[in-house]
Amino acid sequence: MAGSIYGTLLTMTTWGESHGKGVGVVLDGCPAGLSLCEKDIQPYLDRRRPGQSAYTTKRQEKDQVELLSGVFEGRTTGAPISMLVRNEDQHTADYLALKDVYRPGHADYTFDAKYGFRDYRGGGRSSARETIARVAAGAVAAKLLQTLHISVQAYAAAIGPVQMDRNRFDPDEIFRNPFCLPDAKAAGLAESFVSGCIEQKDSAGGIVECVADGLPAGLGEPVFHKLDACLGKALFSIGAVKGVEIGDGFLAAAATGRTHNDAFVSDGKTIRKKTNHSGGVLGGISDHSRLIVRAAFKPTPSIASEQETVNRDRENVRLSIHGRHDPLVVPRAVVVVEAMTAFTLADLLLQNMSSRMEYIQQIYASMQ
Amino acid sequence: MAGSIYGTLLTMTTWGESHGKGVGVVLDGCPAGLSLCEKDIQPYLDRRRPGQSAYTTKRQEKDQVELLSGVFEGRTTGAPISMLVRNEDQHTADYLALKDVYRPGHADYTFDAKYGFRDYRGGGRSSARETIARVAAGAVAAKLLQTLHISVQAYAAAIGPVQMDRNRFDPDEIFRNPFCLPDAKAAGLAESFVSGCIEQKDSAGGIVECVADGLPAGLGEPVFHKLDACLGKALFSIGAVKGVEIGDGFLAAAATGRTHNDAFVSDGKTIRKKTNHSGGVLGGISDHSRLIVRAAFKPTPSIASEQETVNRDRENVRLSIHGRHDPLVVPRAVVVVEAMTAFTLADLLLQNMSSRMEYIQQIYASMQ
Amino acid sequence: MAGSIYGTLLTMTTWGESHGKGVGVVLDGCPAGLSLCEKDIQPYLDRRRPGQSAYTTKRQEKDQVELLSGVFEGRTTGAPISMLVRNEDQHTADYLALKDVYRPGHADYTFDAKYGFRDYRGGGRSSARETIARVAAGAVAAKLLQTLHISVQAYAAAIGPVQMDRNRFDPDEIFRNPFCLPDAKAAGLAESFVSGCIEQKDSAGGIVECVADGLPAGLGEPVFHKLDACLGKALFSIGAVKGVEIGDGFLAAAATGRTHNDAFVSDGKTIRKKTNHSGGVLGGISDHSRLIVRAAFKPTPSIASEQETVNRDRENVRLSIHGRHDPLVVPRAVVVVEAMTAFTLADLLLQNMSSRMEYIQQIYASMQ
Amino acid sequence: MAGSIYGTLLTMTTWGESHGKGVGVVLDGCPAGLSLCEKDIQPYLDRRRPGQSAYTTKRQEKDQVELLSGVFEGRTTGAPISMLVRNEDQHTADYLALKDVYRPGHADYTFDAKYGFRDYRGGGRSSARETIARVAAGAVAAKLLQTLHISVQAYAAAIGPVQMDRNRFDPDEIFRNPFCLPDAKAAGLAESFVSGCIEQKDSAGGIVECVADGLPAGLGEPVFHKLDACLGKALFSIGAVKGVEIGDGFLAAAATGRTHNDAFVSDGKTIRKKTNHSGGVLGGISDHSRLIVRAAFKPTPSIASEQETVNRDRENVRLSIHGRHDPLVVPRAVVVVEAMTAFTLADLLLQNMSSRMEYIQQIYASMQ
Repeated sequence: MAGSIYGTLLTMTTWGESHGKGVGVVLDGCPAGLSLCEKDIQPYLDRRRPGQSAYTTKRQEKDQVELLSGVFEGRTTGAPISMLVRNEDQHTADYLALKDVYRPGHADYTFDAKYGFRDYRGGGRSSARETIARVAAGAVAAKLLQTLHISVQAYAAAIGPVQMDRNRFDPDEIFRNPFCLPDAKAAGLAESFVSGCIEQKDSAGGIVECVADGLPAGLGEPVFHKLDACLGKALFSIGAVKGVEIGDGFLAAAATGRTHNDAFVSDGKTIRKKTNHSGGVLGGISDHSRLIVRAAFKPTPSIASEQETVNRDRENVRLSIHGRHDPLVVPRAVVVVEAMTAFTLADLLLQNMSSRMEYIQQIYASMQ
Repeated sequence: MAGSIYGTLLTMTTWGESHGKGVGVVLDGCPAGLSLCEKDIQPYLDRRRPGQSAYTTKRQEKDQVELLSGVFEGRTTGAPISMLVRNEDQHTADYLALKDVYRPGHADYTFDAKYGFRDYRGGGRSSARETIARVAAGAVAAKLLQTLHISVQAYAAAIGPVQMDRNRFDPDEIFRNPFCLPDAKAAGLAESFVSGCIEQKDSAGGIVECVADGLPAGLGEPVFHKLDACLGKALFSIGAVKGVEIGDGFLAAAATGRTHNDAFVSDGKTIRKKTNHSGGVLGGISDHSRLIVRAAFKPTPSIASEQETVNRDRENVRLSIHGRHDPLVVPRAVVVVEAMTAFTLADLLLQNMSSRMEYIQQIYASMQ
Repeated sequence: MAGSIYGTLLTMTTWGESHGKGVGVVLDGCPAGLSLCEKDIQPYLDRRRPGQSAYTTKRQEKDQVELLSGVFEGRTTGAPISMLVRNEDQHTADYLALKDVYRPGHADYTFDAKYGFRDYRGGGRSSARETIARVAAGAVAAKLLQTLHISVQAYAAAIGPVQMDRNRFDPDEIFRNPFCLPDAKAAGLAESFVSGCIEQKDSAGGIVECVADGLPAGLGEPVFHKLDACLGKALFSIGAVKGVEIGDGFLAAAATGRTHNDAFVSDGKTIRKKTNHSGGVLGGISDHSRLIVRAAFKPTPSIASEQETVNRDRENVRLSIHGRHDPLVVPRAVVVVEAMTAFTLADLLLQNMSSRMEYIQQIYASMQ
Repeated sequence: MAGSIYGTLLTMTTWGESHGKGVGVVLDGCPAGLSLCEKDIQPYLDRRRPGQSAYTTKRQEKDQVELLSGVFEGRTTGAPISMLVRNEDQHTADYLALKDVYRPGHADYTFDAKYGFRDYRGGGRSSARETIARVAAGAVAAKLLQTLHISVQAYAAAIGPVQMDRNRFDPDEIFRNPFCLPDAKAAGLAESFVSGCIEQKDSAGGIVECVADGLPAGLGEPVFHKLDACLGKALFSIGAVKGVEIGDGFLAAAATGRTHNDAFVSDGKTIRKKTNHSGGVLGGISDHSRLIVRAAFKPTPSIASEQETVNRDRENVRLSIHGRHDPLVVPRAVVVVEAMTAFTLADLLLQNMSSRMEYIQQIYASMQ
């Protein structure tokens, strides 16, 4: 597998470069009979679309998805679902100056080192445009999960050093401010912080949190395909992610067993946990409580300030990056985290179908 | 893939339960011609063996590895390498009392939810004994990397709230104190902290850091099999890990581009980075600088203090866990992190062999 | 993996239905630096294009390939190569009558049984149009092999009961007659046979043979990914194939060891075999002699004669299939067999890159 | 995947050499709750055990299986099932003479070409002893299928040129004669033929047929993981197989659509086929009728007659192979074919669990 395929039973194969003809994805393994149309997918793409605020890139791309296969009379057929978004509004000229220069914090140097040369236009394959494909596939996975009453929701938990306050958590606020922060006051502070960064030709990072509700206990395959391990890979595979946490995450390292363990309680019928330090995963398997994951994004490496770097001829040069870059990636990355989480959950949910002989007997008995 | 297979070209398939006949691993895809014998593997197992200090479990297990296949006249043949460690010193009686109880922070409840029942003896498949198999496979991968002058080294970066001080970093110290801390002063503080935990029938967590030196630029497959994504999965697949970071990790979220970007410099021949906030990975591909990853481990969930929980009959019960448990897992987890990192690097190194036509032409030209 | 992904290091993910928007393929894992453009691919598609003789379907489809990604300045970049062929000239109305009927010998009944419903237009996903995607991917693989001086060539070995005579083998003849037979006399007999079938509203099958020359010894991964096992899967995955042979194939079952064994001989430098009953494979690994595989195709199931069958309501009905069907699939299947063989060989060739430590040391030494 | 792992959801990883410490298999992905013990597996191994007649090797090996993991209180737990068979009665001295010689028809030359050297003792990894692992894994799969009322049965269809007569088919006869022929008269003829081969220091091949009854319609994943494609790979991966057929196989190539198509008929409730030329597969998916596959085995390459060959120094030499070899492999290969077929069916059966949204909704509804 050369890197552009993700998943085991539900798979996405993505393709495309920033300044090529387009980007796309083939989703294979979607069960037959899921109601699906382009209108299920486009809203997800609209959430990652650029040009929506002063704090993201000014590029104008419609990113209109075309559903090419796998759906017949409004339902998935079990065949691969191919989706295509044509590229538009590419300013390739912006990148000619960068042709031979290795931008700090970017993949220019490593792609050259790996492949011998690279498509330098807009980052080529390492461009954030690649995430369009993930979002389209994630939208299908989210639809599948909704059918089973499982919801997935991501939002910004921090913009640079500005953290949301959980006491002010307001889910509607996520869609109201340009940062996808669920806390209006934090959004105000973030605005000042990011404006300051822009003024100083600098950029910001942040943290995206994602929760899933309604998950049955049992998802995740011990030992190597644990739910948290799969999510870890899913989120680290998004460009600019430098850390991933589940539940209490790094705080757990400093806690003790007495405070960190989540006590089980029962009302005689249902088992639940009194706390959720685990973030919904025990032994790599979903534990029926809310799933909580977090991903740390580094600041956008493209900045207008002058930087030291080198070129292909191994000469030291100075570089200021101009163009239409996001001063912070978090607002547009929120839906990418949500998509990767939804896709991972849906894949594990399909894998779990064959975990018990009784499930298999139940289905095959009904089949004859 | 049902969860016990890891890797793409270099694969390990692990098996075994805590109180079954043993644990083992089949390593497939190891190139032919690597010098290998049991003496290359045993020292790694000895590092994770229990009973080595007051701060780990008092169980006495020799964990002697038997190399069953894949090696002939001292060299790997290209055939699968099967390794077996028989179980000894199991006190199954310790677990009879836990047969129907769901221990907080453990996988008891989730295994029952997933599979309908479970091997309750010593945690069964979710026992930390499973990591013996990973360490054995990792030892082979480390040998392969050494042949290419790549070294991998893990150590404790924090024990509970006690963090190492990078100014006091001493690599020899790692093997001197019972915590694998590379900082003697921190080791002293950790001793007090963990002793306190034990006295209070409590347990501790911590952070393991792992570095790799000598890596060529180019390892990691964009988009989904990025070096950091593969490491994220590798480390999150270790039980008790709640967070993973690369380079600056979560600190990067609060930084700005100007301070986070690593400037490239050249001496006309070699390109290097002035700083290493990225932790050795750019765009998911190794950048020729030191690789730095960290994993946060939660405190051991087995504690002697009384806890609230439920049993299989969905009754609320109270539980104090007695037995021979590690009050903290970090010292024995250090070599597991090292093993998983080495294995992941070796696998990506093999995958990278077919990244360029010129490599392929070079090998096949020599073959005729 | 839900069925539409093929390969290990070199992978193709195909998508599309007969009467949907188009068919396509994403080829991932192609090494960087291979010279490639649409002109390398189109001639392969032209060979499977319908409407080229009286003995294949009269549909007129240009099947023009669009290369969407993965190539920059005329060379592959290591990124996925997406290729798209839009559908044209679909007569969906032809299929409305077949909406609820299960055509004998077709996948109508089994798709309904598996998925609960189906895209009935032109066979949907089970249409032979799906092979366009394989041919496009195979063309890239063939280009890769040519760079290493490996050639792959398929042709018809039998049309119905008419078999080619190896004494009259003429490679140029393959492209001269409408059956791709390398034997002009057999082509004449085939013409009579197929004309008779058409007259009687009947259809014909045949055998496709494929040879590869220039293969180094060493391709194929024991035990399960043997060269012959991978080819077996590759060819059986083509619709209508009912048998696959390597070398002497089924004749070997009746032979004895003395006649079947191929003696090795040496000129002091090169080892070769005096005969090639093995068909170029020993122990699942290429043996440096010509690779020879054969696939048996059943007669086209769509025939104009009246047949007994049933419909979705489980009623017995009578059916005559009209439309523009190939009276035999072999001529258009020849290039599909060639494509699947080339792709399989290229994938195993990449996998073989990491079979020996010395290859790895050679590449990584040159890398630093 | 380096070649020793087979399957997608149900996987077997095999290991071991002929003259190493033993052979074994790790079966991962078996659903929890299947009743299983060593007594379910040993009878399958006993069927492939040598020394049972004058027509197979005289080696005496008990091939006693040890079940090492994955079963608790008589049921599978969902954890990997590791099985081990220690080697005994190895006469390594028999092979010292063959150390530097390439036996015709064997993998000696190709292993050397691929890996640079080889474990020459008894064929090493390419020995037929490797199939012990497959048979053990196949026994578990067969148990799983039996639970669902699916049976799999293999037998010899031909020994050398002696073919069974379908009119004399007697299932009990399979276990009565040393050739596993279901036709007593053919068994008598086979006895003469094979005795003649032995006298002339020659060897024989044959054909194994395998049928499965009780299969639901729907197994097999279009496009690349068709039921027949998966079986093709499964059977070609067995050493010495040179051809595989489904249903009418190569005869289909010479048939016409009118005679080859299987008419569907219905009694108002159940759909069945009047004939079964397809062998139980349509469009790569099981069609609810009997599955029929056949594999052609070449004659044993180890013969006592003198043969021409070469050695590692590229010198021409003459060779007579002495030792305890099977004069024909078919009788012991029958259970291997059965095992690989059962395993492949069980894997596809698990994959089919997620083919429809309604199955998924049914299981997850029952889960909450």
